Amino acid sequence: MKLQVTQENLNRALGSVARVANSRGTLPILANVLIKTSNNRLSISATNLDIAITHYIGAKVSEEGSITVPARLMQDFISNLPSGIITLDLSDTKLNVTTDKYQSVVNGIMSDDFPVMPAITKGKKWSISGKEFKKSLQQVVLAASSDETRPVLTGVLFNTFEDSLFIAATDSYRLAEKRLTKTKEEVDLLIPASSMQDLLRILGDNEEEVTVTHDEQQVLFQVGDIELVTRLIDGKYPDYRKLIPEKFATEAVLQRSDLVNVTKVSSLFARESAGSVTIDVSEEEQSLSIRSVASQLGENTATATAKVTGSGSITLNSRYLLDALGALSGDQVSFGFNGKLEPTLLRDLKSKDYRHVIMPLKS
Amino acid sequence: MKLQVTQENLNRALGSVARVANSRGTLPILANVLIKTSNNRLSISATNLDIAITHYIGAKVSEEGSITVPARLMQDFISNLPSGIITLDLSDTKLNVTTDKYQSVVNGIMSDDFPVMPAITKGKKWSISGKEFKKSLQQVVLAASSDETRPVLTGVLFNTFEDSLFIAATDSYRLAEKRLTKTKEEVDLLIPASSMQDLLRILGDNEEEVTVTHDEQQVLFQVGDIELVTRLIDGKYPDYRKLIPEKFATEAVLQRSDLVNVTKVSSLFARESAGSVTIDVSEEEQSLSIRSVASQLGENTATATAKVTGSGSITLNSRYLLDALGALSGDQVSFGFNGKLEPTLLRDLKSKDYRHVIMPLKS
Repeated sequence: MKLQVTQENLNRALGSVARVANSRGTLPILANVLIKTSNNRLSISATNLDIAITHYIGAKVSEEGSITVPARLMQDFISNLPSGIITLDLSDTKLNVTTDKYQSVVNGIMSDDFPVMPAITKGKKWSISGKEFKKSLQQVVLAASSDETRPVLTGVLFNTFEDSLFIAATDSYRLAEKRLTKTKEEVDLLIPASSMQDLLRILGDNEEEVTVTHDEQQVLFQVGDIELVTRLIDGKYPDYRKLIPEKFATEAVLQRSDLVNVTKVSSLFARESAGSVTIDVSEEEQSLSIRSVASQLGENTATATAKVTGSGSITLNSRYLLDALGALSGDQVSFGFNGKLEPTLLRDLKSKDYRHVIMPLKS
Repeated sequence: MKLQVTQENLNRALGSVARVANSRGTLPILANVLIKTSNNRLSISATNLDIAITHYIGAKVSEEGSITVPARLMQDFISNLPSGIITLDLSDTKLNVTTDKYQSVVNGIMSDDFPVMPAITKGKKWSISGKEFKKSLQQVVLAASSDETRPVLTGVLFNTFEDSLFIAATDSYRLAEKRLTKTKEEVDLLIPASSMQDLLRILGDNEEEVTVTHDEQQVLFQVGDIELVTRLIDGKYPDYRKLIPEKFATEAVLQRSDLVNVTKVSSLFARESAGSVTIDVSEEEQSLSIRSVASQLGENTATATAKVTGSGSITLNSRYLLDALGALSGDQVSFGFNGKLEPTLLRDLKSKDYRHVIMPLKS
């Protein structure tokens, strides 16, 4: 293998894939990235067996070949080189990396042992705007669980309902759902939330389309020159829609920034009670107050003005409330619930596409 | 105690002092800040028994008094409040903190038990420009040791030599010295480097004077409305001046940014050898090259052009070299040494006020 690439391209490709490589695993080769020529392109790949990412860049190839090299070293090294032409020249398993000022030898492992994800031969294929997809994923993925004892809850569900494509995630304490787009495709995919975090890092802020291809076991996302393949999670997702309240005995509409501020201050006094705060909504006062439960440190009551229909109070985890408010984007939020023991719904006043549910705590 | 302050002032004062309070210690009250009125001023203090910081702010006091409250809670709380007037009202040991939107009760501990640093009654007093002092401290304090088994090396030495005031620090692997100013005062103070880190956080970028007062046990730094008192370290500091080379068999002068780049890249390949790299200076080639020792990962040689007198090579810890280059400020550096086993000196080409010595490794 012998070729030339620009530092900018190689650095960008390593930035896309290197995080997936893992040096703490049992297979040493999974700490490496695979570098492989094909005509006048170079592919840079990494995998952790659940997910594989490949980034293609242009290259001036004078001799075809492939090798795997340590991902972290390679990424740190290339990112510290000045911009310009880099020559990669493989002799045996030693990759010679040279520029005019730097001569390096990186010790590799033969690419024969590098695991390859099976290709998706026949599957469904559809596409979506990258910018919208990125924002929606960010709003939903935070509600997924990281507890591996209930694998289905560690996933993000892509599903068709009444001619629309929805994504949803829940850890059983809170739930986030976003309507993505109209669709005629029947979609039902449960994708690891960790893979969606990797996809988020890849999705740029540009309008590039994301192409999605899937079969029974896997899903492939293609964005520009980057491909991400991930396994699907097996199992039946809970019927979450029946948990989302549609009508409210108590509803407060207020400035999102006001609710963020009063929640933040109250949460400081709720550290000993694991973040538990009580929200009092008063129709008479047209206000929403947050009380932290009295503790060794002290206590706090913070009040914001709100448009209120129906008084009531509910106890929530303030961290979940702050997460939800961070995921909403409008200036005004609606905060609604039906008594102490029922789920609370937060949403933007102007849009029903994104719904965020938080289960109450016993107070 | 009853008074009004602005959120801005109280927040600034807590920002200056709260980091010194320590919740992991044995005395619970040391996790608190002392809040105390005196006429129309409010003092906010924290101490860890080695160091005490007090910040004075203006206040509208209607009832004198004092209390201690948890430092971290108070700082987080006040920093999250909107700007404007805050009322502090003490009843028993409960401090009521109110603004128009927030009502909080912070549980305090009586101030009687709060330790007070002894005052400096008769001592020497001098002053120095804050801006120059800050930069100089930053250049020197990084060379101090954090190993408590040799306490003198955890200090920064302030000392007078040939009518100039110098500060110096060494951990026995490297040494940094800065000439601060001309002086007629005989100064010989060994101050904990950790206290100097606290002082650095307090020193602004403005031209404010720092007033220094010291006796046999303690030193007081006054900057604007802030006072920092720290104990001194007992013990004889090594006679470091004889370690600083004055003449060189080998000297390279080069762009500081070039030397930073080649060192960074080589250090990536030196992780397995604890950062050890070999610097080759060639008079014939008029260049400085850095080689990382061959390892499991690979190896690297990086070259920068330099003005060289006398060829030679030396092995150093690349982390110390990067620290030294970060502390220097000019465009061009001089890198000089006398054979493999003698200390290396780095300095700005245009100034001899700052000298940084690194001891060689065996190669």
